[in-house]
Amino acid sequence: MPHRYFTTEIADGTAFLRGKDAHHLARVMRAKLGETVILCDGNAVEYTAHITGFPEDAVEFSVEEGYPSTAEPNITVTLYAGYPKQDKLEEIIQHGVELGCARFIPFFSRYCVAAPKKEEQKNTRYNRIAAEAAKQCGRGILPEVCMPLKNFAAVCADWAQYDLVLFFYECGGESLHTLLKQLPEKDNGDCLKIAVVTGSEGGFAAEEAQAAAQAGAKTVGLGPRILRCETAPLAALSAIMTLTGNLE
Amino acid sequence: MPHRYFTTEIADGTAFLRGKDAHHLARVMRAKLGETVILCDGNAVEYTAHITGFPEDAVEFSVEEGYPSTAEPNITVTLYAGYPKQDKLEEIIQHGVELGCARFIPFFSRYCVAAPKKEEQKNTRYNRIAAEAAKQCGRGILPEVCMPLKNFAAVCADWAQYDLVLFFYECGGESLHTLLKQLPEKDNGDCLKIAVVTGSEGGFAAEEAQAAAQAGAKTVGLGPRILRCETAPLAALSAIMTLTGNLE
Repeated sequence: MPHRYFTTEIADGTAFLRGKDAHHLARVMRAKLGETVILCDGNAVEYTAHITGFPEDAVEFSVEEGYPSTAEPNITVTLYAGYPKQDKLEEIIQHGVELGCARFIPFFSRYCVAAPKKEEQKNTRYNRIAAEAAKQCGRGILPEVCMPLKNFAAVCADWAQYDLVLFFYECGGESLHTLLKQLPEKDNGDCLKIAVVTGSEGGFAAEEAQAAAQAGAKTVGLGPRILRCETAPLAALSAIMTLTGNLE
Repeated sequence: MPHRYFTTEIADGTAFLRGKDAHHLARVMRAKLGETVILCDGNAVEYTAHITGFPEDAVEFSVEEGYPSTAEPNITVTLYAGYPKQDKLEEIIQHGVELGCARFIPFFSRYCVAAPKKEEQKNTRYNRIAAEAAKQCGRGILPEVCMPLKNFAAVCADWAQYDLVLFFYECGGESLHTLLKQLPEKDNGDCLKIAVVTGSEGGFAAEEAQAAAQAGAKTVGLGPRILRCETAPLAALSAIMTLTGNLE
């Protein structure tokens, strides 16, 4: 299988790869003139590309006509993840990208144990992890990790853009099957936008669950077993992708 | 919520906890006479128990009548996991227990990078991790981690006991929805027995996929994205539990 790289520099049958990826392809993989790679524009279009040159710190390609990436789900899922301790957010991002998540928005809430610290620096790292995972698992887009929201009110205020907001709560709620079946098809062929909200180690305060429902979220459970805060988002994403036919 | 412990010493309205768990309850949690905990017999029956004494290195309880654990799925899933590198098997066991897996059987196969090493010692550790996860997530049984099978032929020879064997293969296969819908109900009220087979980092050889199909496994995929070997079993378990109504 040819290697895959993301680049936005694709135009008129020519493309360039720069920076670390160019170094990886030219120096680490020791690619040669004429070799084939897959380039992805990060907007779900992929190109078969042939190496035509090695200008300084770059690789140049001739590209064939683009084709839509087949790896993107037909729904656009944003994960709002309660900020966990240690490096669990990295695990959530890495596996979440594999499971088709398009965007990650960490947030702080009442029972979060983690406190904000060097978040700009961490965000750069999180986005690098997301990009690496996207490359490895064959995504057609580069999932984004946003800066964390400061409290749960900011989370609830962020939901106008979605067709469905699923608030995963340890006390259970409506059936995910039913909620996903009720979703309308988009007339214009756009993807349905779904938000998934899961808590940190401490879970949610009852007031936060109420606020989520008032802000329009549907409350759902993940069964009678208590899932860890790094397991719940992956189980939720798997369940949603399964029920919408995106995991088969 | 009262603490939960597993013990097999429950009879005639009296129960005992010994060893590390007794130490934890008596010394770490500093439990007092009369306090309530939940005891589970590891066979999906739970008991509300009140502390009646602290004999040496033990805790004694009076127990009320047992009731069935509500946390067990209505299917019994065994995960055959290709032996991964580093501590990924621990991650698979921990999260797999939360997702309702009943038994783990690691195996070596053609493209496994990991090689057998101190497996008896590791197996003790794996079972301890499974037991801790079972306690924390509220399982009604203690999922078991078996000693690893030496090759893929041993895996295929182990399947007579299941109602359905699902071989998760990167090249895709039948629809999981359809396969699970076709499963018969058990007349005697027993749980359906399902085996899930996922590969190590290197995936499966084409001959192994053929051997699995010949041994009666159904080949299924997990979508167009390439899942890591620690993500695939958790996505597979989530998908199966979702489609059988055990994750809501």
